[in-house]
Amino acid sequence: MIKVTLLEHTPNPERVVAMAARLCYSPSGAEELKEKMSDEQIEKLVKKLAEMGHASTFEHVSFTFGIEGISRVLTHQLVRHRLASYSQQSQRYVAAHDFEYIVPPSIAEKPEAKAKFEELMKTIREAYDEFTELGVPKEDARYVLANATETKIVVTMNARSLMHFFNLRCCNRAQWEIRALAYKMLAEVKKVAPLLFKNAGASCVQTGACPEGNMTCGKFNEMIRMREE
Amino acid sequence: MIKVTLLEHTPNPERVVAMAARLCYSPSGAEELKEKMSDEQIEKLVKKLAEMGHASTFEHVSFTFGIEGISRVLTHQLVRHRLASYSQQSQRYVAAHDFEYIVPPSIAEKPEAKAKFEELMKTIREAYDEFTELGVPKEDARYVLANATETKIVVTMNARSLMHFFNLRCCNRAQWEIRALAYKMLAEVKKVAPLLFKNAGASCVQTGACPEGNMTCGKFNEMIRMREE
Amino acid sequence: MIKVTLLEHTPNPERVVAMAARLCYSPSGAEELKEKMSDEQIEKLVKKLAEMGHASTFEHVSFTFGIEGISRVLTHQLVRHRLASYSQQSQRYVAAHDFEYIVPPSIAEKPEAKAKFEELMKTIREAYDEFTELGVPKEDARYVLANATETKIVVTMNARSLMHFFNLRCCNRAQWEIRALAYKMLAEVKKVAPLLFKNAGASCVQTGACPEGNMTCGKFNEMIRMREE
Amino acid sequence: MIKVTLLEHTPNPERVVAMAARLCYSPSGAEELKEKMSDEQIEKLVKKLAEMGHASTFEHVSFTFGIEGISRVLTHQLVRHRLASYSQQSQRYVAAHDFEYIVPPSIAEKPEAKAKFEELMKTIREAYDEFTELGVPKEDARYVLANATETKIVVTMNARSLMHFFNLRCCNRAQWEIRALAYKMLAEVKKVAPLLFKNAGASCVQTGACPEGNMTCGKFNEMIRMREE
Repeated sequence: MIKVTLLEHTPNPERVVAMAARLCYSPSGAEELKEKMSDEQIEKLVKKLAEMGHASTFEHVSFTFGIEGISRVLTHQLVRHRLASYSQQSQRYVAAHDFEYIVPPSIAEKPEAKAKFEELMKTIREAYDEFTELGVPKEDARYVLANATETKIVVTMNARSLMHFFNLRCCNRAQWEIRALAYKMLAEVKKVAPLLFKNAGASCVQTGACPEGNMTCGKFNEMIRMREE
Repeated sequence: MIKVTLLEHTPNPERVVAMAARLCYSPSGAEELKEKMSDEQIEKLVKKLAEMGHASTFEHVSFTFGIEGISRVLTHQLVRHRLASYSQQSQRYVAAHDFEYIVPPSIAEKPEAKAKFEELMKTIREAYDEFTELGVPKEDARYVLANATETKIVVTMNARSLMHFFNLRCCNRAQWEIRALAYKMLAEVKKVAPLLFKNAGASCVQTGACPEGNMTCGKFNEMIRMREE
Repeated sequence: MIKVTLLEHTPNPERVVAMAARLCYSPSGAEELKEKMSDEQIEKLVKKLAEMGHASTFEHVSFTFGIEGISRVLTHQLVRHRLASYSQQSQRYVAAHDFEYIVPPSIAEKPEAKAKFEELMKTIREAYDEFTELGVPKEDARYVLANATETKIVVTMNARSLMHFFNLRCCNRAQWEIRALAYKMLAEVKKVAPLLFKNAGASCVQTGACPEGNMTCGKFNEMIRMREE
Repeated sequence: MIKVTLLEHTPNPERVVAMAARLCYSPSGAEELKEKMSDEQIEKLVKKLAEMGHASTFEHVSFTFGIEGISRVLTHQLVRHRLASYSQQSQRYVAAHDFEYIVPPSIAEKPEAKAKFEELMKTIREAYDEFTELGVPKEDARYVLANATETKIVVTMNARSLMHFFNLRCCNRAQWEIRALAYKMLAEVKKVAPLLFKNAGASCVQTGACPEGNMTCGKFNEMIRMREE
């Protein structure tokens, strides 16, 4: 079960974004703008920026998440997002004797497959224990651990990088586990910056266009059809 | 006169850094660590991380500055730091009729040079005004503005990127204006994260080594001499 | 007059991109794929990648340009593209006694404005010379130099970063000088990687959508109208 | 067995680096410098840059490697280097029925452990096959694959990023598999840019200082002792 906690974030994120955007076109300085802009002005400006996707000002606010209950299948994909910061639980230093693991739904729903999966995890745990008893260091015993093994990670992304992450990973074509994570992260940031992330989500949701060509899930075409009816 | 305001920053920066560092070597999750770590544990761990320069966890905390009273000589250097986010007052959109300007100390201290400088700025202002009266758009009239012209900028950097910025720009060999800015920014972050930035500064101050080779300012050698006496 | 030279680039750029893309979906290794893929296979795959904008494989090929005859108005914008590498002629170390300068077309076409502009450049040159004669160091004398002053720069970008650069800077709403540079750079890379950069250009050209909202130049609507007729 | 192939790289890497470095301090343009600099001038300048670690000009040259015979333990570490580009064989799309695997030396040298390891890999292969026969998609069957499973990847880094990679990963404290990869990559780039990578390697080798504090391997102290004798 994926657990996502928004540990910290830049305070007043929408005020910061609006102030930075306004500064570019104003003779006034940042501090003055930050104090003087009314809530209405901020709302109007952030909405406009979010709609237009003028994203560079979104970089001024960042969000730090604690994430647990995910597999290393997920984190190997996650850390490919390079405009982000990560601190991950190390299999080199943290013993994995009774590791938890993630069962894919397509396996969990088939009793035969599920039993096989759990038996295999038990076998791996036993092998891991035997290796460490034989004097194999943790950093090498982990070579037998499965992709399914649970891991924990701290992730920091700014709002621009998050928007891009949601574009790719809330998409129906994204792998199911990282998609589930993306939706949980999106729910968290919407609580603290609802205007900023109002249109955030898969590319089709945010930009009105699907970049997946003939591999599209069809959701986009459905959206267009619904709009036209 | 450079004015630096720390507009916002990740709350509890040292707790966040310590939590992220601890997570890598612990079976516990981030939220639990963040709550349970004592102030003493945090102090000890952040000190150790800062001394060793193990910097990846410093990325989880970021700092947003409003900066005014600087020249475009400075900002053209500043924006070369690529692991940072910027929103700058635009000469394309903001009229510069009565622009302020920065006078280098080597000019300010020579009456003849100072008079010449101020006269030239007056001439440029007049030319700028004439161009706009002739129908030249602001984005082209600005081609005559001097490097000295005052600008305003919002800058966000995480602590790792800031440390590197201080390494290069607090150095005696850095250009005087950006060095003055760096020291002001350092003073601001020391107020809110004193342990984290305790050793921050020029490379020689932070790492005990000067990377400038035979172009060293000598400060480092002096530091070594003083230590040996 | 902007001068752009493609100094070096990754050899066989389209073969490299195709090989990297194929590797993701193939049991074979990179060397084998690179040797075995036919020109037809490469052409077909690169076309598909370029159309879909699946851009991560474009990062494996990079392009190094020598650029001259541009102003510091341009380079202050250029270096804001952070996924790129720059080495720029330094006003701190290179004397600017007889600096060249860029005249904006809106000024060049008005005789009165042009004369004014040239006179002002002459005045600035004289002031620069006087300052250095008075013992002001080059790094401070440059504070009087105009934005129009000519500079030289070496720029390296990978193909993904270039595509994004063209999206923003070939746009009719981009500032005229950097737009002229972008088109010259695009012409250079098209010579050596015509398939890869076939669809490259302003966002509307590459993606069929204008991100400028109600500030659109209208080119996109015109394109749609033409397609429908 | 790790296999590293240098697939492509920026031609004339040392000439490019020297030209970019010279441009900063010269009134001449890039193309002129590139043509006129003699081999002796390039050798001298690159040596100096490499010794001083003045690294920004190293970014203008990049290197693309095909890598095989490595585990996903290694690649999960490798892709944490964010200033680089990756295309990796996908376990989501490429079937892993007869996957190869990497055996850690500490296991290979113990007959009992080695037998256990190989038996477990056989069990995992069988489970993977059974899952796919039960209709579990490849992207979910892979959850049982071990960290030891062989993977293939294409990696592009510029010389500056490579230097940093070698600093961290040629270090005796780096994990053995990624250290072995780092040394093979270093050997490859030394063939084509011997001056540039002359001092490349672990931090202690390149900079003369160990950043590992009291976790140092001692190699550095040994180096100092040897120098003093």
